[in-house]
Amino acid sequence: MTIEVVALDGDDTLWHSEVAFKAVQERFADLVAAHVDVDAIADELLSVERTNLERFGYGVKSFTISMIETAISITDGAVTAGEVHEIIELGKWLLDHPIELLADVADTVPALAERYHLLLITKGDLLHQETKVAASGLADHFDGVHIVSEKNTATYGAVIDQLGVDPAVFAMAGNSLPSDVLPVIEVGGHGVHIPHDLEWEVEQTAEAVEVPTVERLGELPDLLAEL
Amino acid sequence: MTIEVVALDGDDTLWHSEVAFKAVQERFADLVAAHVDVDAIADELLSVERTNLERFGYGVKSFTISMIETAISITDGAVTAGEVHEIIELGKWLLDHPIELLADVADTVPALAERYHLLLITKGDLLHQETKVAASGLADHFDGVHIVSEKNTATYGAVIDQLGVDPAVFAMAGNSLPSDVLPVIEVGGHGVHIPHDLEWEVEQTAEAVEVPTVERLGELPDLLAEL
Repeated sequence: MTIEVVALDGDDTLWHSEVAFKAVQERFADLVAAHVDVDAIADELLSVERTNLERFGYGVKSFTISMIETAISITDGAVTAGEVHEIIELGKWLLDHPIELLADVADTVPALAERYHLLLITKGDLLHQETKVAASGLADHFDGVHIVSEKNTATYGAVIDQLGVDPAVFAMAGNSLPSDVLPVIEVGGHGVHIPHDLEWEVEQTAEAVEVPTVERLGELPDLLAEL
Repeated sequence: MTIEVVALDGDDTLWHSEVAFKAVQERFADLVAAHVDVDAIADELLSVERTNLERFGYGVKSFTISMIETAISITDGAVTAGEVHEIIELGKWLLDHPIELLADVADTVPALAERYHLLLITKGDLLHQETKVAASGLADHFDGVHIVSEKNTATYGAVIDQLGVDPAVFAMAGNSLPSDVLPVIEVGGHGVHIPHDLEWEVEQTAEAVEVPTVERLGELPDLLAEL
């Protein structure tokens, strides 16, 4: 079957995101390192983030609260109010961070929009994602924008149901195997991986999996034509 | 024109919300009062919340970060890490708080669903709102659920456009004049106010306005039949 609907992920597929999170995480580690030995900081933060995901969901506000919680627990309460304030400022910096499109995006998104019913499916803070979509200058190319709390088989199933199409005509491309690729394949659609060199640990799979992969968005149209 | 589409707000229209926020705010004030005179605490928190709304949006995570920020600024940094941790726990308590439906809701929502295309339009944290909709047991009665970042004329205009109906057949009912009633009237729909005895200051209008009003959801069907 020919592909009719193409869905794209936002963060680290269309625009940079993880690079800013990693920069904040480094500043966070420096700040906490004034109180404790630095080795376990990243692991501890990741563990707090994972625990909080179910309750807080994805996004900068969730990450900010997890940083504060980690700073308090890892320093055994020695973190100062001033340092907590700095962590909040780091969160605000992330929210205010300007959008920078990834390679090929500015040309490829309009090209995909001419040929396919084009969707953006992204997760994170509702307002922040809306703000990023607007700032990207790409909004007009999409026939629909879905900001979702989780990208799983239920999410993709609902999107495909809403369109009333056969899953076999639906393709989704993004940088996260567990969020953008594997659940799409599981519901009978086509998942395409566009790896990003910085990947949040939560978005990694434990084992290597073989899926259709392109190195950059500009290679997606040719791959879609072959599916 | 006869009403064809009825949209309802969630928080403090279908289920309690503000009562839990107010309880948390009291515990927050007690906590901060250990450091400073209590008078200005509520005003200062409200001011920080208003400033943060544009960047953080609505919801518990935003409120939690605003409480931490307020505690730091109002105590001039004297708030302890342990107290900041307590504030985060208050936020988690709000997210975990069970859903309690308001009067008439359990009977009236199914009755409205039989007669109208029924929507839920709510704002706040995406995941938290989804969790509340699921926990309410009402989800199956709605033909659509819209979790939005802001309830203004653009939001209602988009919902009405998507349905392809005349705004005159669209009615929205909720407890907030600026969010649920006035923008709906402005786009040519019918706004119905269902006042709640606890109202967040951000959701109040500066001046009294005359709009169709019912005291409880059970009175809405009769009012809709008269519109």
